[in-house]
Amino acid sequence: MPAVDLVADLGEGFGAYSIGDDKALLEVVSSANIACGFHAGDPDIMDATVAECVRTGVGIGAHPSFPDLRGFGRRAMDLTADEVRTDVIYQLGALSAFAAYHGGSVSHLAPHGRLGNLVATRADYAKAVADAAARVDPALIILAQDGELATAAADRDLRVAIVGIADRAYQDDGTLVPRNQPGAVIHDPSAIVERTVRMVREGLIETASGRDIAIQADTVLLHGDNPGAVELARLIRSELIAAGVTIAPLAQVLAAKQRLS
Amino acid sequence: MPAVDLVADLGEGFGAYSIGDDKALLEVVSSANIACGFHAGDPDIMDATVAECVRTGVGIGAHPSFPDLRGFGRRAMDLTADEVRTDVIYQLGALSAFAAYHGGSVSHLAPHGRLGNLVATRADYAKAVADAAARVDPALIILAQDGELATAAADRDLRVAIVGIADRAYQDDGTLVPRNQPGAVIHDPSAIVERTVRMVREGLIETASGRDIAIQADTVLLHGDNPGAVELARLIRSELIAAGVTIAPLAQVLAAKQRLS
Amino acid sequence: MPAVDLVADLGEGFGAYSIGDDKALLEVVSSANIACGFHAGDPDIMDATVAECVRTGVGIGAHPSFPDLRGFGRRAMDLTADEVRTDVIYQLGALSAFAAYHGGSVSHLAPHGRLGNLVATRADYAKAVADAAARVDPALIILAQDGELATAAADRDLRVAIVGIADRAYQDDGTLVPRNQPGAVIHDPSAIVERTVRMVREGLIETASGRDIAIQADTVLLHGDNPGAVELARLIRSELIAAGVTIAPLAQVLAAKQRLS
Amino acid sequence: MPAVDLVADLGEGFGAYSIGDDKALLEVVSSANIACGFHAGDPDIMDATVAECVRTGVGIGAHPSFPDLRGFGRRAMDLTADEVRTDVIYQLGALSAFAAYHGGSVSHLAPHGRLGNLVATRADYAKAVADAAARVDPALIILAQDGELATAAADRDLRVAIVGIADRAYQDDGTLVPRNQPGAVIHDPSAIVERTVRMVREGLIETASGRDIAIQADTVLLHGDNPGAVELARLIRSELIAAGVTIAPLAQVLAAKQRLS
Repeated sequence: MPAVDLVADLGEGFGAYSIGDDKALLEVVSSANIACGFHAGDPDIMDATVAECVRTGVGIGAHPSFPDLRGFGRRAMDLTADEVRTDVIYQLGALSAFAAYHGGSVSHLAPHGRLGNLVATRADYAKAVADAAARVDPALIILAQDGELATAAADRDLRVAIVGIADRAYQDDGTLVPRNQPGAVIHDPSAIVERTVRMVREGLIETASGRDIAIQADTVLLHGDNPGAVELARLIRSELIAAGVTIAPLAQVLAAKQRLS
Repeated sequence: MPAVDLVADLGEGFGAYSIGDDKALLEVVSSANIACGFHAGDPDIMDATVAECVRTGVGIGAHPSFPDLRGFGRRAMDLTADEVRTDVIYQLGALSAFAAYHGGSVSHLAPHGRLGNLVATRADYAKAVADAAARVDPALIILAQDGELATAAADRDLRVAIVGIADRAYQDDGTLVPRNQPGAVIHDPSAIVERTVRMVREGLIETASGRDIAIQADTVLLHGDNPGAVELARLIRSELIAAGVTIAPLAQVLAAKQRLS
Repeated sequence: MPAVDLVADLGEGFGAYSIGDDKALLEVVSSANIACGFHAGDPDIMDATVAECVRTGVGIGAHPSFPDLRGFGRRAMDLTADEVRTDVIYQLGALSAFAAYHGGSVSHLAPHGRLGNLVATRADYAKAVADAAARVDPALIILAQDGELATAAADRDLRVAIVGIADRAYQDDGTLVPRNQPGAVIHDPSAIVERTVRMVREGLIETASGRDIAIQADTVLLHGDNPGAVELARLIRSELIAAGVTIAPLAQVLAAKQRLS
Repeated sequence: MPAVDLVADLGEGFGAYSIGDDKALLEVVSSANIACGFHAGDPDIMDATVAECVRTGVGIGAHPSFPDLRGFGRRAMDLTADEVRTDVIYQLGALSAFAAYHGGSVSHLAPHGRLGNLVATRADYAKAVADAAARVDPALIILAQDGELATAAADRDLRVAIVGIADRAYQDDGTLVPRNQPGAVIHDPSAIVERTVRMVREGLIETASGRDIAIQADTVLLHGDNPGAVELARLIRSELIAAGVTIAPLAQVLAAKQRLS
């Protein structure tokens, strides 16, 4: 029986501001990418989010970003690889302390936003992130799409979980269609559900050009930034279960896969 | 033979800015209070400072602050105790990850600036800091003056090291004369050296009113923000050694004291 | 016929975050307190908000704050009066440039949040704000409650507009019941409407202790941070008009009052 | 008799940090590029710097930057042209208010660091800066090297002053050799003095490839970030005067040039 993790970006408020319905999402996901203060999140929000993850058994993931609160981490910054390394160490450490405080631990790391895009294609950034993770905590799972980060993490003997993004169009090389291009985001809920189930059960996704390519999806990225998104997340979960898929935290999904291989 | 730790605030630059001669101080101290990004310090500076501490065997301490880079953590902010708790967890975690990356660990925690002043007298802040430390890492040593933080840390079974500040005037109750009052800072190097040696060897310090009070000094705070300060730090170190005092990291000083008691 | 200005806090988003329904409020108010980047607001949001105010004829007001984005300007900071002065100059100037860019000008200044509370009682802060305003632009109107800021502004020959806050409880001395005390905020819409109309038409408000005190309300503060608030703002406007009150920008309200006196 | 302005970057401290010897430089320069808080500078420093410029008759220039205090504005950020526009408006306005407070005005605008490099070659950024300046204050002089910003400013009928940078190597197209390339910065003081005098008197500079190219230098950029730099700045001033050059504020230099043409 196939197993998959469901992950969403959580804790993305800041101070008086909030984004997303974390409460609702926590009932749907098995893992959370938690903002670490650089693109969103502040110590109070990180504390509350981690506490809820520990209470509900949701896997805790660090979601480090470029240091750009105003741009929500979506703008490229011309950082050196070494600056990326130190920024990731800082954010990972901050989140880890909240996990320790609440009796849990950080189980995965998933770069956010533009940094997340760039580590798929820039080997220097990918190595910087993998180096940070491997030396701070070699037990971390790295969430990545196929690409440089997945390679760099494997080179450092880190476990890698491939994230499937069912509401984004893929290019034939397995990377995402950039957000500023037409058709980059898929809005039709039933198409998203269908793509998700197919991705998990058959290991295939149809690219923007109409080809089927193989995709390994250890986890599926869900959203919660509007009421429709939460509804859709619930639907994805129930349809996966109806299709015989087990929803489980990332570490379990990877362990099961290893047993099979 | 009496033993004492020598500690200084390090890593207090930010980006292109620097304060203090860290290189020189690292040859004098046995422990460092390292800025964690809230009043000073950035991930690059934290990384480089921690790397040097690990290389030279200097004890690594977290130096968390109010979130006030512009005010260098010297301005009070009306934070709730819970905000203090989460800010300390965040900063402690960030520094801990750099320590882990470089194969070391954070051995102590010493609140900076105004927060450092307030935890001596505000029980709610003191408890927040002690709670953060105790749950993130119960092996941490808390650097404190006599006061609420020392009490709260002991209540949480944390080891407490009392810091002697030889260039600041003391009040009869053992707290420092506030910085904005005349005579708060002692500038005469020979007076500072003499006060230091007496503090460590005899356990006594003369207050602003002329009384001798008992002071326990497990560590002595040195400065390095101008050439004279570094010179003075060197002199304090050599005079202590000449007086038969052993300079040793905090954990050793506390362990030795425990054996005696 | 009595005239009053209606004002609301606008432009309080930051980056990807938004607070309040500015679009709806702009159809109700005659003046706007616009966040200047220290507690909320960023250059993009300031630009868009000012552009809309110029287009719709809504009076532009600077809403300077303590520098505390995470605390939304609601936490006290132990700034010197001189720091308050320079922070206000900075924020006022930034907003003024957007007004100039769009062919308008800043007509009033209203300190935000905790700074707004403190200038009512701290003479040094009040003088700092009045000094900043008077020397940068002597034509500015200062929005204040009765208190030190109103006094300091008058001493500098600045025009003062008194703001009535119909959904906050007043103390017998004319200051607001602090937000952390029970009963500080009035939630019943019909009570708020009635208090507003009475404040404007009769110049009276009932305090928390049940006494009627005189209140001069040149402008009434409205909110828009939830759907009910916008609905209430619309109702206040229509009930004022139904009661024979003219809604007009601040400069007109003050000019009319001056003609009468 | 040729006339030239001497300009330096001033007010580049932040909070407790300082960079450069502003006091010494203010005795050498006739204009100042003043940091506006985004790469350096804070309201207190801006206030003090502007006050000194007004007192000594030094021309006040806005020195806007990418929003990157940690990177000192030297790192590229992937901002839209519209974000550049609003960031420049914000910073220009903030500085203008300090000028107004002290009875002066901002006379020129010179983008800082990486933004300063990019406006020479990116037409969209150049237009954004010129648009911001032209609509906020059409009397502003734009400091630029030859390139897109000079063109865009002229298109908006803004006066343009060309800045000569005697300690940086030029490429044959008149742009600077990028800072990360060997030979980008010239360190030999006598070479710098000679290049400066030749630039101002003959209108020529030798490029990295050894060619002479024409250069118009309405102002020469001086530095003050180390003792040698201040000494060199003084020498450049005295050698220019000895060579019969008049040192005058930018507006006078441009006015004199216009009379000649």
